Amino acid sequence: MTPPAPAEFGLIARHFRPLAGPGALDLLDDAAILAPPPGRELIVTVDAMVEGVHFLPDDPPDLIARKLLRVNLSDLAAKGAVPLAYLLTLSARRGVSDTWLEAFAAGLKQDQEYFNISLLGGDTTSTPGPLSLTVTAIGHVAPGATVRRAGAKIGDAIWVSGTIGDGALGLRAIRGELDDRDGFLAGRYRLPLPRLGLVDPAFVRAAMDVSDGLVQDLGHLCRAAGLGATVWAARVPVSVPDPRWLETCLTGGDDYELLMIADPVCETALQARAGELGVAVTRIGTIETESGIRVLDAASQPMTLASGGWSHF
Amino acid sequence: MTPPAPAEFGLIARHFRPLAGPGALDLLDDAAILAPPPGRELIVTVDAMVEGVHFLPDDPPDLIARKLLRVNLSDLAAKGAVPLAYLLTLSARRGVSDTWLEAFAAGLKQDQEYFNISLLGGDTTSTPGPLSLTVTAIGHVAPGATVRRAGAKIGDAIWVSGTIGDGALGLRAIRGELDDRDGFLAGRYRLPLPRLGLVDPAFVRAAMDVSDGLVQDLGHLCRAAGLGATVWAARVPVSVPDPRWLETCLTGGDDYELLMIADPVCETALQARAGELGVAVTRIGTIETESGIRVLDAASQPMTLASGGWSHF
Repeated sequence: MTPPAPAEFGLIARHFRPLAGPGALDLLDDAAILAPPPGRELIVTVDAMVEGVHFLPDDPPDLIARKLLRVNLSDLAAKGAVPLAYLLTLSARRGVSDTWLEAFAAGLKQDQEYFNISLLGGDTTSTPGPLSLTVTAIGHVAPGATVRRAGAKIGDAIWVSGTIGDGALGLRAIRGELDDRDGFLAGRYRLPLPRLGLVDPAFVRAAMDVSDGLVQDLGHLCRAAGLGATVWAARVPVSVPDPRWLETCLTGGDDYELLMIADPVCETALQARAGELGVAVTRIGTIETESGIRVLDAASQPMTLASGGWSHF
Repeated sequence: MTPPAPAEFGLIARHFRPLAGPGALDLLDDAAILAPPPGRELIVTVDAMVEGVHFLPDDPPDLIARKLLRVNLSDLAAKGAVPLAYLLTLSARRGVSDTWLEAFAAGLKQDQEYFNISLLGGDTTSTPGPLSLTVTAIGHVAPGATVRRAGAKIGDAIWVSGTIGDGALGLRAIRGELDDRDGFLAGRYRLPLPRLGLVDPAFVRAAMDVSDGLVQDLGHLCRAAGLGATVWAARVPVSVPDPRWLETCLTGGDDYELLMIADPVCETALQARAGELGVAVTRIGTIETESGIRVLDAASQPMTLASGGWSHF
């Protein structure tokens, strides 16, 4: 008998083999060869996205693919790493349509080219549940030059890139809870932009991306340093300057902007790099001795926020 | 306000931080540093397991964890790689019990120690669907020494490690379709043993693990070489020598034994390595010019198998 190449292998060949890069062995093997660029250290990160949790069932497949890559690249950006390659796991119902996969792979291809990365390997499996996607992204840094969450010092400035809260506002706009005539906010939710190239240990002491909400993520950074912070709410850059949405912006997740801690003397260097990249950066607060995050309103009064941020469990 | 460390972070700290190894940054960051051992090349592989597809909902959590690691290590074994570290993605219903997670982490710990690997990073997320687990495993080889699927030559011998079909028989034993008084077959299904150290480019020309079924996986190997094969069914080592189960053994998946292609002159070297490891290896066939897989019965007549093997789509 001649065992046929099963459907699973056909779809890998059709949709994913064209995306394979150096070391991927044309996706014919169950593993790939990973060669770090000479003299560089590797950074690895993994992020999963589940239908109904991280994206909506009727979201366009190409945008799901691109968001999946981008949330992982955002973690590399926070480390100051240059993206290199990724592995993909796709768990879908049997009979996932070829049209869906084609659009999904087209989205991967578009962002592979944009971010200069390639597919290294993966796994496809069936599930009786919602579509589940996992990407393991690999980047590289100069040895010892990884920027961590820990490292903030008393008196350091707290910076953010871009505008904060757009992810949460975008989700609400898609649900019709918020006016978004030009689709800007929905676009920010569906297609975040990883801020690659901004974090550099020359002027950033600690960093992470804002994925669970600004206040919660700043809490992580401060706990890692055993310190606290004050944030001036009025300085946090937002796309919808409406007090009714301020708390959503301060605590909503899915932004994928960068939260950076820098020595105040590094302001010029950070601003210069941001300028080169065409990314706005804004100083929103200060690292302090006292633990916890104090968010002050325009009258310098402490705000009480109902929700700290997002937890999956 | 002081944002609390949310439940998700508590469970990571409790169950997974103790498993973190070098480069994992104590799982406090969203990414990890991966340093290949000096002078070695990295091999990466990813495999997902979904509740109801790859394991049963009431399987013991520690065995699920160990199987998850082992199916990935099996892919490294087929490449001739030495395991180094892994990343874990866990998608579970909100409220997954702490007892379940504790047992799951205990299983990871047990096999981490057994295989001398450590946790490098991961992601935890909620899902409304079945429990989904993904592991990205990283190993290392001497540069250029990766054994691939492709490479079989005409006249090469086809070898397998251990016994073939135990995974499929074990699943049927668990379902009560087959006698398994001592639980041996169920154990083989629930806890495969990756055959690390057996594959070596010094005497193995091509290899892969048997995960989709012997005939189908041999088909992959042969297609990768543009060749075919003859297999002598009577020589395929099985645990249940009953003709009624022969086809199940030849086409059933989930074995994680190794399928190896070797020049006939390398038989002594392969046998010697197998002897050192205490692993049985059996020659089951020959690589030939004519494409397709011919399975011959004890009377040298071609067998017709109803099922080629497993496809997820």
